[in-house]
Amino acid sequence: MRLAIRRIAILGMGLIGGSLGLAFKAARGGKVEVIGIDNNELSLIKARQRGAADIVTTDARAGVANADMIFICTPVLQAAALVKEIAPYLKQGAILTDTGSTKSYLIEQISALLPCGIHYVPGHPMAGREKSGIEAADSTLFRDKWYILTPSGADNATAVEAVRQVISWTGARITEMDAERHDWCTALISHVPHIGAAALVNLLAYSEDQDSSIKLAGGGFRDTTRIASSNADMWADVCMTNAAPIADSLDKFSQLIGQVSQAIRQGDRASIHQFFANAKERRDELLKLEEVVTEQPLSNGR
Amino acid sequence: MRLAIRRIAILGMGLIGGSLGLAFKAARGGKVEVIGIDNNELSLIKARQRGAADIVTTDARAGVANADMIFICTPVLQAAALVKEIAPYLKQGAILTDTGSTKSYLIEQISALLPCGIHYVPGHPMAGREKSGIEAADSTLFRDKWYILTPSGADNATAVEAVRQVISWTGARITEMDAERHDWCTALISHVPHIGAAALVNLLAYSEDQDSSIKLAGGGFRDTTRIASSNADMWADVCMTNAAPIADSLDKFSQLIGQVSQAIRQGDRASIHQFFANAKERRDELLKLEEVVTEQPLSNGR
Repeated sequence: MRLAIRRIAILGMGLIGGSLGLAFKAARGGKVEVIGIDNNELSLIKARQRGAADIVTTDARAGVANADMIFICTPVLQAAALVKEIAPYLKQGAILTDTGSTKSYLIEQISALLPCGIHYVPGHPMAGREKSGIEAADSTLFRDKWYILTPSGADNATAVEAVRQVISWTGARITEMDAERHDWCTALISHVPHIGAAALVNLLAYSEDQDSSIKLAGGGFRDTTRIASSNADMWADVCMTNAAPIADSLDKFSQLIGQVSQAIRQGDRASIHQFFANAKERRDELLKLEEVVTEQPLSNGR
Repeated sequence: MRLAIRRIAILGMGLIGGSLGLAFKAARGGKVEVIGIDNNELSLIKARQRGAADIVTTDARAGVANADMIFICTPVLQAAALVKEIAPYLKQGAILTDTGSTKSYLIEQISALLPCGIHYVPGHPMAGREKSGIEAADSTLFRDKWYILTPSGADNATAVEAVRQVISWTGARITEMDAERHDWCTALISHVPHIGAAALVNLLAYSEDQDSSIKLAGGGFRDTTRIASSNADMWADVCMTNAAPIADSLDKFSQLIGQVSQAIRQGDRASIHQFFANAKERRDELLKLEEVVTEQPLSNGR
């Protein structure tokens, strides 16, 4: 059985919310009505102008009242308070989903707030860019990117299927994953690299000669630290809401760095070489695996 | 006074040596003769086929005998033994330069080996790629990239000028720097980021679910770890020959990571936010400075 999703409310019309709205309208045109909700009126005007929403409002309660599906696209730490505010106004059978990048925290917070008859399907699109805000929104942001859903066994299968259907309009590759595994994997693959890049940039505060540093930088430094230019608020929230996986992984990372440092001080070339050879072998494997995983046919159009 | 450089010997016909040869021949054609020297005969055949050298030989002594300028483009740890071997065969007034990425170590090693009347001008081109070997060589590899020279005050000004002249044929931006400063700056800006990227990839050995990791990876991980696929031998040598600056910087890096980890465990959002905000501000500053520094007119054609 397919649920007919005709009215979608998006809370938070920034990069992610705006791009979802643009993608939904591009794929479905008049067959779907998008209600854009934000407390920033300028963002709403731009969202309307760009066609990311049919209707815009700063009134979250009124905005969600008749929606079949609700996307929470706010920063992670704002999500729970917002869900608490709108929960009494959601219609029976409405499906709530979110795009937050840490899942266990949000599931714990949000599940406790929802009344009976409202379904919650947690989600996380693996898409982003350095720029943020509705200005950076793009209808193709999710195309061919992974979009992870982390439903628990208890979640209504029909609601999960409806969310898959709506997200398929964005052209994303949809997959499901256990929420806790998601959080540990994202810590390793995304959060710790991000913190590492930021630490590298901060380390340059020790450098006394900026001009020399720049001349020596080359393309490698620009690439390695690219993600350090992202939104500080968002990343502080990520750390606050995925604390244990991130802190544990950071400590392991720091240990690895300490081991290499010691091998270098001791002039232990064999250990140093092994460290680099392992990394090269492992990255090459991962890139090969990425090709294989990415070449699998899209399953979201099923 | 300009020295006429007509015969150039390149020892090590890999990515860097091969690209130098290609660039010299592209810029000067028959006005310069390039002698390609390597102990790998296959590399020499390819170098000859690609036009990176006019003459090729595995006999380093014969190859350098009549050269006006000699480029040492071998891995750093092989450079000193090679210079020792060829030193007696260099002609009076010959100019030796190298492309090694750590300078103080090489200066100490090489200066002690050179007979009177041979000039040494240490160099370091800030260019590279993931791939290595003569197959990856490219006549435009150095174009608009920084090429650092680290002559000491005692080095012959005419020899430095001759090296600048020859390197200008590659289209590189040439600048001079103190060797010790070079080594500390490269540790911060290049070596530590490289080791950090390799450590991030190795950290993934802790991840139990490769498929999930790949789906969650996104473009950020690929960028952040790109340099982890480089040559393990070369990087082991870099660590062996720039040990103190690298180990000291790694320890500071590890401290920064430890501080963030602690702030995350304590839920100290203000400190976490400050960490990310500093990094963003600092990277944006560096990229702006990079534009300013790079927009300065090329000085190498003087």
